[in-house]
Amino acid sequence: MSRPVSFELQHQSKDCGARAGILHTPHGDIKTPVFMPVGTKATVKTMTPEELKDLGAQIILGNTYHLFLRPGMDIMEKAGGLHKFMHWDKPILTDSGGFQVFSLAKPQDMTEEGVTFSSHIDGSLQHISPEVSIQVQQVLGSDIMMAFDECVFYEADWAYTEASMERTLRWLDRCMEAHTHSNQALFGIVQGGFFEDLRDRSLRETTARDLDGYAIGGISVGEPHADFTRILNYTAPKLPEDKPRYNMGIGSPDYLFESVQAGIDMADCVLPTRVARNGLAMTHRGKVTVRNAAYKEDFGPLDPDCDCYTCQNYTRAYIRHLLNVNEILGARLLTIHNLHFLISLMEQMREAIFDDRFIAFKEDFLRAYGEE
Amino acid sequence: MSRPVSFELQHQSKDCGARAGILHTPHGDIKTPVFMPVGTKATVKTMTPEELKDLGAQIILGNTYHLFLRPGMDIMEKAGGLHKFMHWDKPILTDSGGFQVFSLAKPQDMTEEGVTFSSHIDGSLQHISPEVSIQVQQVLGSDIMMAFDECVFYEADWAYTEASMERTLRWLDRCMEAHTHSNQALFGIVQGGFFEDLRDRSLRETTARDLDGYAIGGISVGEPHADFTRILNYTAPKLPEDKPRYNMGIGSPDYLFESVQAGIDMADCVLPTRVARNGLAMTHRGKVTVRNAAYKEDFGPLDPDCDCYTCQNYTRAYIRHLLNVNEILGARLLTIHNLHFLISLMEQMREAIFDDRFIAFKEDFLRAYGEE
Repeated sequence: MSRPVSFELQHQSKDCGARAGILHTPHGDIKTPVFMPVGTKATVKTMTPEELKDLGAQIILGNTYHLFLRPGMDIMEKAGGLHKFMHWDKPILTDSGGFQVFSLAKPQDMTEEGVTFSSHIDGSLQHISPEVSIQVQQVLGSDIMMAFDECVFYEADWAYTEASMERTLRWLDRCMEAHTHSNQALFGIVQGGFFEDLRDRSLRETTARDLDGYAIGGISVGEPHADFTRILNYTAPKLPEDKPRYNMGIGSPDYLFESVQAGIDMADCVLPTRVARNGLAMTHRGKVTVRNAAYKEDFGPLDPDCDCYTCQNYTRAYIRHLLNVNEILGARLLTIHNLHFLISLMEQMREAIFDDRFIAFKEDFLRAYGEE
Repeated sequence: MSRPVSFELQHQSKDCGARAGILHTPHGDIKTPVFMPVGTKATVKTMTPEELKDLGAQIILGNTYHLFLRPGMDIMEKAGGLHKFMHWDKPILTDSGGFQVFSLAKPQDMTEEGVTFSSHIDGSLQHISPEVSIQVQQVLGSDIMMAFDECVFYEADWAYTEASMERTLRWLDRCMEAHTHSNQALFGIVQGGFFEDLRDRSLRETTARDLDGYAIGGISVGEPHADFTRILNYTAPKLPEDKPRYNMGIGSPDYLFESVQAGIDMADCVLPTRVARNGLAMTHRGKVTVRNAAYKEDFGPLDPDCDCYTCQNYTRAYIRHLLNVNEILGARLLTIHNLHFLISLMEQMREAIFDDRFIAFKEDFLRAYGEE
């Protein structure tokens, strides 16, 4: 039986581990490396699906935790799944809900069976287990489901991380058992914190299960940059070459470059949409805090090197005005720009890979982008 | 010398005072009767200019009071006017600031010279006079400027209304004197409250000044419906036939029908955009409060008789979900629908006028729309 999602490796850059490929999914093909905008609550904040397509978005994320709470699974089921509910006919990846249960909600009780938590909305007690997570994701009907895991934070010690990682492996088996929809793929997540021996064990055990793709979890969780790089470069190259590789929660240009350089194909983050609503533009010449008085009479575009709708039609002075008077159009215009920035960055990385000049492109780009 | 704005009467409905025409302006022609969306702070809330054009918007309003305070006239001047600043190349009408000075700000001192008021934003003392209003509107570069007037509220007695109306006439002369931009039209505003004799005097004096168009001010200010109808029907038919007639601040279907029936060509209101952000849809079958639990599992469109982008692509259940989780897309989708509803209502009125069946169309439409 053919897989719901398969990866076709097209080219390996000669100067590093970066690779270009195509991810075949039930809702269409995805050119990789790819940045995936996050549609937390059945909408990529401020955007219509048509606008996302115009930007070149190929796949978006949905958040199991949020959709489980609101609108809830009875409505999602009657709606016929997330694609239909939100009017998006391209691929969707759903996370497992694990990350939000541990970060956003208050876990009241974690056992081998699953997690009981207090909803961040109304405090009501809720329960998610590997089986519930897969059931919910099957109702959502995503092209790619993620296994239910615990994302261990930076402060966790070896003993906690080991126990958690082993439990995540047992949860993975239960996810696979609960997975009955043959038109939805299931990705496993390599955990193990910042300990090479645990990463080895998680990697060996996770990839021993013949899944449709593999993610790296538990990095980019507040650690120093050197630790991110160490674990990324230790783990990513060991993932199976013939399967898609996904680094979860990555959205800053430097981390995206490092991920792709290490052989990652997919990344997602709320960063571009969240900072947009706070008035920050990511540009080819670095970050621009549009609210700054310096832009009061700046009638140039946000980013002179950008061809997005916002930069073609509006000035910094106008967008600053919109932010100052709390007009929704300000958040829209910045969201369009930031998503375009990251989506086209990944497209440019892909071209650089085909041209075997990934490292040179990375250095040029990051030099102009500057430091935080 | 030709006028910046001229009105071409195309057809007079045989069953009432309703009329169809074309308003020629420096930024293009406008088919009347027309509903004008309000772009208070240099944006029609939640919308891009392209979206407004897709809905068939022919002209929008800008608010002198708001733009005077923010971004302020130095920026508007350097931006090259409101059209360029907000990326809108079709006609713009600006109000005089008078209404907001009296309703939103705190007038500290009103004299023959003008009004000193306390800004609703930071409490700073500001001053607007007929001359300032016209100067500001000339910087904004609108196609149609409105004369600076006092809009008297429903409670005003005869003596106050008379004195105010006479002052508004003197202010009109000063506006005409201050008006130096030959590519911008100036409309006068007939005041006189709810007193026929004062309306007569204001009408005679205002239309004696040879202006580019005339508005009715001071109705739809909280009065009983019968008073609105009485003054509208007393005043509108007496306005010059060869000039555009504008009823200010009208946005509910019944008031729009009555206005057009009395011979009005132009109307504007924040109603469709404001109620949209509060979750209310105006539909062919009446108002729909989308947040109601009744629509939780309603997978039909907002308005089954509507062909707007929202109704073609989204369900009530989805929009209700967006409103419940405070997603911007919810406000966008409702704004698109409500503006489309009123813009296309005016287009249908125009067709009915050409077919001499305005009254029949009005009765059919309002029967289905139902009561508040």
